[in-house]
Amino acid sequence: MHALKVTRAEDFPEWYQAVVREADLAENSPTRGSMIIKAWGMGLWEQIQGQLDRTIKETGHDNYYFPLLIPLSFFAKEAEHVEGFAKEMAVVTHHRLKSIDGELKPDPEAELTEPLIIRPTSETIIGDAFSRWIKSYRDLPLKLNQWANVMRWEMRTRLFLRTAEFLWQEGHTAHATKAEAMEETMLALELYRSLAEDFLAIPVILGEKPENERFPGAVSTFSLEAMMQDGKALQAGTSHYLGTNFAEAQNIRFQDKDGGVSLAHTTSWGMTTRMIGAAVMVHGDDDGMRTPPAAAPKQVVIVPMLRGKPEDAELKSYCDALAKELHAGHVFGNAIRAHVDMKDARPADKRWDWVRRGAPVICEIGPRDAANGQVTFIKRNALREGEKIKSHTLARAEFVAQAASLLEVAQRELFDEANARLDEGIRGGFESFADLEAYYGAGDDEREVKGWVRVHWSRPTGAELEKVGERLKALKLTIRNAPLKQPASFGKCVFTGAPGVEEILIARAY
Amino acid sequence: MHALKVTRAEDFPEWYQAVVREADLAENSPTRGSMIIKAWGMGLWEQIQGQLDRTIKETGHDNYYFPLLIPLSFFAKEAEHVEGFAKEMAVVTHHRLKSIDGELKPDPEAELTEPLIIRPTSETIIGDAFSRWIKSYRDLPLKLNQWANVMRWEMRTRLFLRTAEFLWQEGHTAHATKAEAMEETMLALELYRSLAEDFLAIPVILGEKPENERFPGAVSTFSLEAMMQDGKALQAGTSHYLGTNFAEAQNIRFQDKDGGVSLAHTTSWGMTTRMIGAAVMVHGDDDGMRTPPAAAPKQVVIVPMLRGKPEDAELKSYCDALAKELHAGHVFGNAIRAHVDMKDARPADKRWDWVRRGAPVICEIGPRDAANGQVTFIKRNALREGEKIKSHTLARAEFVAQAASLLEVAQRELFDEANARLDEGIRGGFESFADLEAYYGAGDDEREVKGWVRVHWSRPTGAELEKVGERLKALKLTIRNAPLKQPASFGKCVFTGAPGVEEILIARAY
Repeated sequence: MHALKVTRAEDFPEWYQAVVREADLAENSPTRGSMIIKAWGMGLWEQIQGQLDRTIKETGHDNYYFPLLIPLSFFAKEAEHVEGFAKEMAVVTHHRLKSIDGELKPDPEAELTEPLIIRPTSETIIGDAFSRWIKSYRDLPLKLNQWANVMRWEMRTRLFLRTAEFLWQEGHTAHATKAEAMEETMLALELYRSLAEDFLAIPVILGEKPENERFPGAVSTFSLEAMMQDGKALQAGTSHYLGTNFAEAQNIRFQDKDGGVSLAHTTSWGMTTRMIGAAVMVHGDDDGMRTPPAAAPKQVVIVPMLRGKPEDAELKSYCDALAKELHAGHVFGNAIRAHVDMKDARPADKRWDWVRRGAPVICEIGPRDAANGQVTFIKRNALREGEKIKSHTLARAEFVAQAASLLEVAQRELFDEANARLDEGIRGGFESFADLEAYYGAGDDEREVKGWVRVHWSRPTGAELEKVGERLKALKLTIRNAPLKQPASFGKCVFTGAPGVEEILIARAY
Repeated sequence: MHALKVTRAEDFPEWYQAVVREADLAENSPTRGSMIIKAWGMGLWEQIQGQLDRTIKETGHDNYYFPLLIPLSFFAKEAEHVEGFAKEMAVVTHHRLKSIDGELKPDPEAELTEPLIIRPTSETIIGDAFSRWIKSYRDLPLKLNQWANVMRWEMRTRLFLRTAEFLWQEGHTAHATKAEAMEETMLALELYRSLAEDFLAIPVILGEKPENERFPGAVSTFSLEAMMQDGKALQAGTSHYLGTNFAEAQNIRFQDKDGGVSLAHTTSWGMTTRMIGAAVMVHGDDDGMRTPPAAAPKQVVIVPMLRGKPEDAELKSYCDALAKELHAGHVFGNAIRAHVDMKDARPADKRWDWVRRGAPVICEIGPRDAANGQVTFIKRNALREGEKIKSHTLARAEFVAQAASLLEVAQRELFDEANARLDEGIRGGFESFADLEAYYGAGDDEREVKGWVRVHWSRPTGAELEKVGERLKALKLTIRNAPLKQPASFGKCVFTGAPGVEEILIARAY
């Protein structure tokens, strides 16, 4: 018996919804397409925010905040950009309600002369500010970041993975040269890699998106791709070199050292609450979420086995003292986050709540533990031996002394497990499109884990690339990226038969 | 010569705009009514957030995130509430743009069946979730908080003080009894008091709003009132006991211990980016902002007097070492935030930038300082002696050893200065409305600092209170609150002549 009613093997999408719900991560809201992020989900996002924000600041970026609403005319300036987003824009048209025939309606007299768009991303309004702030090469580089909510209207939504509103961070920078802007683009990618791998224990493959998958208006787009347990890919962050496209559209020019006037080279890069969905699909098991210890809002949860009797007071003070001792220790550069769960509920229910949320170490302290000065606990990432829950007992001092290393080991084990899966899940040896068809086309059971494939290609562009996209789409496949790490030589292109110039990753994707 | 072109005495509103602009706090955006919060302003907000978030969590609240957009029908459920906000609501009516006759417009085929409102506050959508989450007394209290952007359409805006979009924190809780809900209401008020006084060095007066100034739908509203340097009041946070009004409208019921079904008692409380405007108007001087050290994003700023010569390298390493030593020290419970300003600009310009932003301690390190192992610095809160900038020099080790206490003393001095102003700025001895008229009505020069007055009143309600409001409005006055600290006895009501039952504060206000 597992803690969830559905297993990954039975129905992966259903299992995902069950984890998100049962782990107190999020739920659907009455506002169509938007979610309510709940306590454990928000706690996880705050940890992600805190960690990424620190590295963003350490690399010289300041946080700003720009308006939620962007005048419609701002989007018209960059044709590709607006084309990419026009179909998903939430439009504000009125600024007042009025009771008309007893019914509240937008007041016709309060119609805006120019509609306002809820930001789907902020290049246009930040670029406008750049054009005012940047006068000379001395104002460059200008490197800023914003934490914000954004909105892209979606018809079919899935919690964290695809919602109309989501939370994210968007970095925007301007530079004097292409070289500096490219360096920044790759720096942002490295910040995301570190967040994914070192903090969330999610191994990723960094690479460049093909032309047809670029951010609307970008010169080049780089992504992190992570492999979910069903073998699908999830794009976990993107970083864009925008060239001078936005600078041209928005007039971001500066006086250079020689006295001439040049266009700035800009970048943008974003990482979203989607990352929480990725963590669930990489680390979750049939008992719920397994939260990577570095990112867990509570790393050690202590459940006192209270019985509503006078002895409870003693048990509680034993647990409080234990939490205090743990809190004095450090792990992953911070004080250990220990929590005593005093909620008015049955201890067994509380234990299972924390198993489903995936608190890394869960202590269950009964009167005997208190009397013997010991700690009984389970490790969430290695919860069972066979079908049985495996519980451990250590002397209190020993447990406290080992707590940091318990968490570090769990973090490493989660990463290693996911990394082994990624390694095994990428197959090569495909010499033609027919090979691909044979591999992915055999049976249309989406539940079967096929993983990713790596193939060589001749990097077709334009109409030829469109055709490649369509052929892949028929197999429900997309090109994920061309990994930064490339082999020394290439076979022929599986699409065109021409000599290959690059290796790319192909997968089904979220 | 001061660092700003306009002084407080010449034109207080102009001076305020100048500080906000020159201190890199914020600027107007091309989106009418919305602002761009810039690096120093956002840094200050992040410090405020960090501090308040910590105390909110320590008192048992979890952070959640609810949708930005709220279905229109949700507002219709609480009549007073919607009446209070309907005139300020930004309404989303379409979810797609389309090119029509070559012009981008909201797509008529993508009109929403029910308009969505950008949240002006979230009682309605959070109350809806409460009604689903709360089943039994065991689910109570439910205490949550959200950090978010909200929107209240404003025709006349002023940076931080009154903008269409602003950032805030909104606490929402549900309780089994009135007593518990009132305790929570007062707890939130105390968190705000501590934030204002202990962190931002802004003395405040806590009290209850009169009936006509309550939050729409609340049973009672409490506020913090702070005095600006022009003698006006600014409401710096509010906490509401909502009774069972919202519970009734939204069906928040629970099975109580006796098996009966009861309505929950709810509260809500909010604090916003307005607090930054308050800090400017309480602490700023004619040289710009004076940022309270506890809240300053950078507490000690080090400006190396670089000359573009080989000696610069040595100077820079001296400054870096100094910053590192400072960073190892602690103040206000955290590592000292020290920063070396390596921007490519003239040292004197950089110094003045930091004076205008109000970094608490600004070090200017020249080759002589490095050679002598000393630190030359200015204290921003005591910048001048007469008209002259007062600079101090200490041996490096001594400066490092004293840094924390320098910051603590500056924090206390800023508070004491503001507190003395508040004490002196509240006058009593008014026995009739005629007295008030004589005091405030003499000359209509708004620039004259009249401060606040305390008067006794008979706590009129309904139409009688409306009339009081109108008489005060003619003098541009409002009732701020009835302070929690009340005298032992009361004179007669200045409005009605009846026996007084309460002392209230009256002021011009932002």
